[in-house]
Amino acid sequence: MAAAEEGQWVLMATGRSPTNIAVIKYWGKRDEALILPVNDSISVTLDPDHLSATTTVAVSPSFPSDRMWLNGKEISLSGGRFQSCLREIRKRAQDVEDEKKGIRIKKEDWGKLHVHIASFNNFPTAAGLASSAAGLACFVFTLGKLMNVKEDHGELSSIARQGSGSACRSIYGGFVKWCMGKNNDGSDSIAVQLADEAHWNDLVIIIAVVSSKQKETSSTSGMRDSVETSPLLQYRAQTVVPERVLKMEEAIKSRNFESFARLTCADSNQFHAVCLDTSPPIFYMNDTSHRIISLVEKWNQSEGTPQVAYTFDAGPNAVLIAPNRKNATILLQKLLYYFPPQDNDLSSYMVGDKSILSDAGLKSIEDVEALPAPAETKMPSQKFKGDVSYFICSRLGAGPKVVTDESLALIDSVTGLPKGV
Amino acid sequence: MAAAEEGQWVLMATGRSPTNIAVIKYWGKRDEALILPVNDSISVTLDPDHLSATTTVAVSPSFPSDRMWLNGKEISLSGGRFQSCLREIRKRAQDVEDEKKGIRIKKEDWGKLHVHIASFNNFPTAAGLASSAAGLACFVFTLGKLMNVKEDHGELSSIARQGSGSACRSIYGGFVKWCMGKNNDGSDSIAVQLADEAHWNDLVIIIAVVSSKQKETSSTSGMRDSVETSPLLQYRAQTVVPERVLKMEEAIKSRNFESFARLTCADSNQFHAVCLDTSPPIFYMNDTSHRIISLVEKWNQSEGTPQVAYTFDAGPNAVLIAPNRKNATILLQKLLYYFPPQDNDLSSYMVGDKSILSDAGLKSIEDVEALPAPAETKMPSQKFKGDVSYFICSRLGAGPKVVTDESLALIDSVTGLPKGV
Repeated sequence: MAAAEEGQWVLMATGRSPTNIAVIKYWGKRDEALILPVNDSISVTLDPDHLSATTTVAVSPSFPSDRMWLNGKEISLSGGRFQSCLREIRKRAQDVEDEKKGIRIKKEDWGKLHVHIASFNNFPTAAGLASSAAGLACFVFTLGKLMNVKEDHGELSSIARQGSGSACRSIYGGFVKWCMGKNNDGSDSIAVQLADEAHWNDLVIIIAVVSSKQKETSSTSGMRDSVETSPLLQYRAQTVVPERVLKMEEAIKSRNFESFARLTCADSNQFHAVCLDTSPPIFYMNDTSHRIISLVEKWNQSEGTPQVAYTFDAGPNAVLIAPNRKNATILLQKLLYYFPPQDNDLSSYMVGDKSILSDAGLKSIEDVEALPAPAETKMPSQKFKGDVSYFICSRLGAGPKVVTDESLALIDSVTGLPKGV
Repeated sequence: MAAAEEGQWVLMATGRSPTNIAVIKYWGKRDEALILPVNDSISVTLDPDHLSATTTVAVSPSFPSDRMWLNGKEISLSGGRFQSCLREIRKRAQDVEDEKKGIRIKKEDWGKLHVHIASFNNFPTAAGLASSAAGLACFVFTLGKLMNVKEDHGELSSIARQGSGSACRSIYGGFVKWCMGKNNDGSDSIAVQLADEAHWNDLVIIIAVVSSKQKETSSTSGMRDSVETSPLLQYRAQTVVPERVLKMEEAIKSRNFESFARLTCADSNQFHAVCLDTSPPIFYMNDTSHRIISLVEKWNQSEGTPQVAYTFDAGPNAVLIAPNRKNATILLQKLLYYFPPQDNDLSSYMVGDKSILSDAGLKSIEDVEALPAPAETKMPSQKFKGDVSYFICSRLGAGPKVVTDESLALIDSVTGLPKGV
């Protein structure tokens, strides 16, 4: 390596990666170390403007060790998930030259250099919204950019997979399939893009972030317990999912919302059924989750065909997918009827694409209070103020991107430390 | 027929039948009309002093039609379930003679005579505590007594089955197995007693009647939906349950509480998993049910071996089975710590065997308030006052019995109508 002032330079790259929500669920590993799943899974990538991780990776000969900060707080990098990704990317590092800064790093030098990583989620980390998927995908993608890794997205997805299984699906935008693969070394357990985000761009996604008082089982330990104790898990993985994956690919290809919605709801419910079949049983959904499902099921039933799909990951939050803006606004009216904001502040109750509120005719809290009870509800119904923390309105989005505007980097290019720390 | 005053006499029989709680669950019919199940099930019969149905059946030539009253209110007898049982018992009716009253009924006359039936549950009908099992078993048993039916208990169980599937298991006390049978006509789908109530008489049963605001899916329509839509149900019925039934029979035979508890909990959870795997999904357990499970699971885990078993039927109520009085009192202390009575009235908060309260050192509401947080709870925990309506403490009990004391009959022997109506 060489630089104007030896040892003083800092070279950086910044990337942004989306989160993703599985519509055919990943639950269970056949190999814990390599993170190889027991079945294929399919996800939709969400718009990074609403839900994404931004990561800056910096390298400097002055760094004595690898360090990482998440949302401004230093965290340990010693965990196996980060170490696997770091090792795999370093292995593939190439020569890097920044002529402007007069920096040259030869590929054999990467093993001696340390990195500083700063990552930031534009949504609450603890809310159970696949923050680790976005985070690990961004970690791998951005490290790869810094180290001039030439591997394609499939290879990157396989590395991200070793950080956090579902992270491999955040390497692409649109509709993504994680092929479980057959090889023992995991080389064919990679993500592929089924269709990009433009393929079916009228889908609207509304997330209800549900208030929860209970500590949840982590998905890592939860799925390990399921593999070890649920008699239903292997049957699901070997018999039910393969057929659903084929049908889901077909539904996505033909933009068949009815089929897409039925498969999405059924597979979410079956994933939670397997959690319940685990010993001790795992409950991710709570009464609020159940009420949101009932609301959607009653509506779908009254119309005779699915108006909206729902899916729940390892937590109580509902991810609702509407086929178009019209259904999304009707859904929002129903949701806000049952779950009005706790503090009457409508504006902070909807994040992401806030324009859905005015599309739904909801400009003030008075509009919410004036909402009629959903027609399919037979009896005057109870309301559940405070049971939803807030909503996010989003859409399908693109895969990871390099952030070229250096002012958006999370690390100071002089100190090599996170900005504002 | 003949009597002192032709047409004026009323002949009656009164019986009492227990309810039962399945420890290997029945969920799914292979024949809707005959009520033939997709798998064997095993239950424990509860002490009729705490949970039972009492039924009086009266016959008189003066009755112009069959009529029935449940808990003092007339209900329709036109439903298929009652009609099947009435028809099957009438078919088997024999000559009856009451010398004291000078009444003689020849078996061929039963077809022309009508009956009045009055039934009463000594527990809330709507609480989801298998009231229909106790009720239909009592209906069949008492009709059989009145009509001098000679068939054995197995045959009676097969008739009760056609009224309400799980009613067939209430024909015996103790531990009962409902054999699914193989015949298309259902003739071998009968209940058998695995062991009587004296076989394992230190078991203590505590039921938490959980407050529920939601209308529940009836088990009849719920299991039909599961059979039609759950991909996991047939796998459970054909592959998982047969093995569990063998293990459960062995656990009961050898009074192996550890095995009994593990199987009971796992099978309850798997039944609810199949409900969740149904489309639309069925939720019988709510957040309170989940909290009771967590309480038990944490305790069991901290001791390394099951201290208590739990099982939930088609509703949120928890049925908890302790191996002995000591564990039952510890369980009660833990339950009352988290779920103190809403109105501070301890005495009405525990029904059935109230002596468990003093055994647990809980003589007043102050004793409840002084309970320490369960040791296995890591953090100071929230309490959930009002989430349990009340508790029932019970034990294993005997099968149906004739009530010979005529003063306990529910029908007036002169008017032929329910007493007090």
